Amino acid sequence: MVSDHLRSAVRAYIEANRFRLVSELQDFLRLKSISTENVGMDECARFLRDELLRLGFAADVATLPGAMPAVWGQSRRGGGPRVLVYGHYDVQSPDPVELWDYPPFAAEIRDGVIYARGATDDKGNIWANVKAVEVLQAVLGEVPVSLRFLFEGEEEIGSPHLGLFMRALADRISADIAIVCDRGIHESGRPQLYLGNKGIVSLEVSAKRAKRDVHSGHAPLIPNAAYDLMKLLTSMREPDGTVTIDGYLENVKGPSFEERQLLDTIPFDRETFNRDYGLASNLGPQDSRGMLERLLYYPTANISGFKAGWMGERGRTIIPHEARARMDFRLVHAQTVDEVKAKIARFIEKSPYGPFDFAFGDGNEEYKVSPGLPAVKAAIENARAVYGTEPVVWPLLDGSGPLYLFPKHLGCPVFMIGLGAPFSTANTHAPNENISVDQYLKGIEQMAGLLATYAELM
Amino acid sequence: MVSDHLRSAVRAYIEANRFRLVSELQDFLRLKSISTENVGMDECARFLRDELLRLGFAADVATLPGAMPAVWGQSRRGGGPRVLVYGHYDVQSPDPVELWDYPPFAAEIRDGVIYARGATDDKGNIWANVKAVEVLQAVLGEVPVSLRFLFEGEEEIGSPHLGLFMRALADRISADIAIVCDRGIHESGRPQLYLGNKGIVSLEVSAKRAKRDVHSGHAPLIPNAAYDLMKLLTSMREPDGTVTIDGYLENVKGPSFEERQLLDTIPFDRETFNRDYGLASNLGPQDSRGMLERLLYYPTANISGFKAGWMGERGRTIIPHEARARMDFRLVHAQTVDEVKAKIARFIEKSPYGPFDFAFGDGNEEYKVSPGLPAVKAAIENARAVYGTEPVVWPLLDGSGPLYLFPKHLGCPVFMIGLGAPFSTANTHAPNENISVDQYLKGIEQMAGLLATYAELM
Repeated sequence: MVSDHLRSAVRAYIEANRFRLVSELQDFLRLKSISTENVGMDECARFLRDELLRLGFAADVATLPGAMPAVWGQSRRGGGPRVLVYGHYDVQSPDPVELWDYPPFAAEIRDGVIYARGATDDKGNIWANVKAVEVLQAVLGEVPVSLRFLFEGEEEIGSPHLGLFMRALADRISADIAIVCDRGIHESGRPQLYLGNKGIVSLEVSAKRAKRDVHSGHAPLIPNAAYDLMKLLTSMREPDGTVTIDGYLENVKGPSFEERQLLDTIPFDRETFNRDYGLASNLGPQDSRGMLERLLYYPTANISGFKAGWMGERGRTIIPHEARARMDFRLVHAQTVDEVKAKIARFIEKSPYGPFDFAFGDGNEEYKVSPGLPAVKAAIENARAVYGTEPVVWPLLDGSGPLYLFPKHLGCPVFMIGLGAPFSTANTHAPNENISVDQYLKGIEQMAGLLATYAELM
Repeated sequence: MVSDHLRSAVRAYIEANRFRLVSELQDFLRLKSISTENVGMDECARFLRDELLRLGFAADVATLPGAMPAVWGQSRRGGGPRVLVYGHYDVQSPDPVELWDYPPFAAEIRDGVIYARGATDDKGNIWANVKAVEVLQAVLGEVPVSLRFLFEGEEEIGSPHLGLFMRALADRISADIAIVCDRGIHESGRPQLYLGNKGIVSLEVSAKRAKRDVHSGHAPLIPNAAYDLMKLLTSMREPDGTVTIDGYLENVKGPSFEERQLLDTIPFDRETFNRDYGLASNLGPQDSRGMLERLLYYPTANISGFKAGWMGERGRTIIPHEARARMDFRLVHAQTVDEVKAKIARFIEKSPYGPFDFAFGDGNEEYKVSPGLPAVKAAIENARAVYGTEPVVWPLLDGSGPLYLFPKHLGCPVFMIGLGAPFSTANTHAPNENISVDQYLKGIEQMAGLLATYAELM
């Protein structure tokens, strides 16, 4: 249990250095690092590396062929638990720039809020961690754990080399526990943690029936590619969303007892949800708690795009000879990417509406860490202490991500802490992305406290 | 029965005036009359009108608010059967001009073939009729029937005012029999007639489920507009094409005895059809005769376009909040536009996958004339005499058209004769549209013979 004395000292240091800490984040935010356009990546990576070197870390920019540079860092302390913090320094394009009220790379402060691309996603998260190191060095004389950093530059383009970087840097960044710092706190102002995410498999599937579009007078004889592909797609699920692919649900498990306990504590309201998205009604249960459980524990077969025939000005009386669709499948415990791909492929191949061409995109595995893991319990306890309120702990995200790569390549469990602005106000991937000064400083405090907690835990 | 003497005289006149008859068609083809771009319409209409006046017809350019001009003409002869010939002087845009081997409005002749936009569709057909008048006047001293012409300028944009023109000009063009001259002879070189066409109803239908596209992590709760619309569309027909809308087939009738006899004489080959369209297999029967009957006598529910979600570069993990589709329904005997619209509307409204928004486009009724009608039998006999070979007589087209407007507004039966190049070589609506000099002159001979035949018939 970290002493009140230490927590007070951390807060006092942050308060005393408030102006400089904010100013340094502004410097970091002013560096463009747009991976989607390959702008400013090297410069931003070196800036991060230099800051870690300044803090006395072993650190460098790591490269791989065809990849944006990654930055690793390692504290000098040999003993104690090994803790890996992951973040990404790349940001989305600021377009459309004209919709920003402030220049996206000026990091202007208005009414206590810093506006900049990357403010929450994810440079604010990263910088809070780097500054937590400085705070602990000032207050304790050292970082009390064997701390490792991995900051990648490809998160906004799907982290295509993250696994390779982990393997290449395993000697430098392997750890007992990994923490992904991304996203923000809850809308209610409560701190927020995520203990896992769903897996995902993406699919492109198409039908070709004739060698060109044919006059629809011939429809009694000529197969319609759009119809056949629709029959395939709609045969994959029920109207209520239940996936009907053979054997698809056989490995699917619902929430554990511990997870159900967490679900009971998450703020989720049916009326708000349906109003936010403009729904007349939602799929599945009509009570808030039931909806939340379904949101996180149901596998999905989602049609994300479909195109066939002519949808321009004035109709054309044609039979589309080709139709193309995209789908994504969210995987829940204990589905695996390979298993799901095999089942989908078999379903498509033996469909009575075929033949179809199809190809899978890269998949991500589902991942969950137990809420009972001591490192997780300690993180929840630390968040409670820092914020003086109950954290919102998601047993998993409804989205997907690279969490599974940490156990796979580095052999450690992982979970996620959000240090940024709440999702509804952060404007992530949108104009006027921001983080409040107070939230940024609170992030430093939370991470400094967590590292001190871990020093005592193990 | 028209005498051999008369037929010889007609052929002799055409042969003696061959150069001028061709040269005059070239003049007509050199006039741009592109209704889709509103180019040259008035000038072309006046040119036609003036030619009819020169032949001694009562004739004029008729106008209606918002419509391209139509041209009507009426021979001076008072008695005898009233015969209406319909054609259209408007043409499709020549784009892409760069793919033409000859300028599209130069009407150049190469190896006995005239290349020009409109050569077959439909100026070649029109001009053969106008010149048939000249031939009969030269050979008989007069046109032996009460001949009426209606040449519209909006066929290529869907004939939106044709019914109105018919009503406005009824005093001038009402007839005992109407002949639509469009299209061409059969690929085999045999003359070709069509005794009807299918009806059509077009539909736009859409689903909206959320107020914007939503991250597909939310798919367990948020209805997918694409899925719902696909469920509706695929519930309208079986994979083999059978329409499953309630009560849809209750008025549908197959071919009559007379029509089945015609079907037996139409060249139609399964292997050729499937090879031409690149089909692995066709819907419905696997024998040529069965396919032909299905092609003409099956109602269809065809998906002509569908669009939902994101199909641009790289997938997006979204739930489409909107989906849009277009369909066309071909109507066969004895379905009506109003009846079919009502059944489709009821089906959509009570669909369990709704709600949906939908709107119908303008419809065309199905139309068929009996092959036993004396005017039809005479036309077949005349075609046989002119070509010295058996005509190809389609009991109806697999496409749709305005044939039903003739009985509706003018009170007369109607059928269709193709005087142009065969479909597979005419390049209708495509670069290098053409008609052979011989085919054009044969068209004059056919129409002159037909009018002489009608003079004896009634």
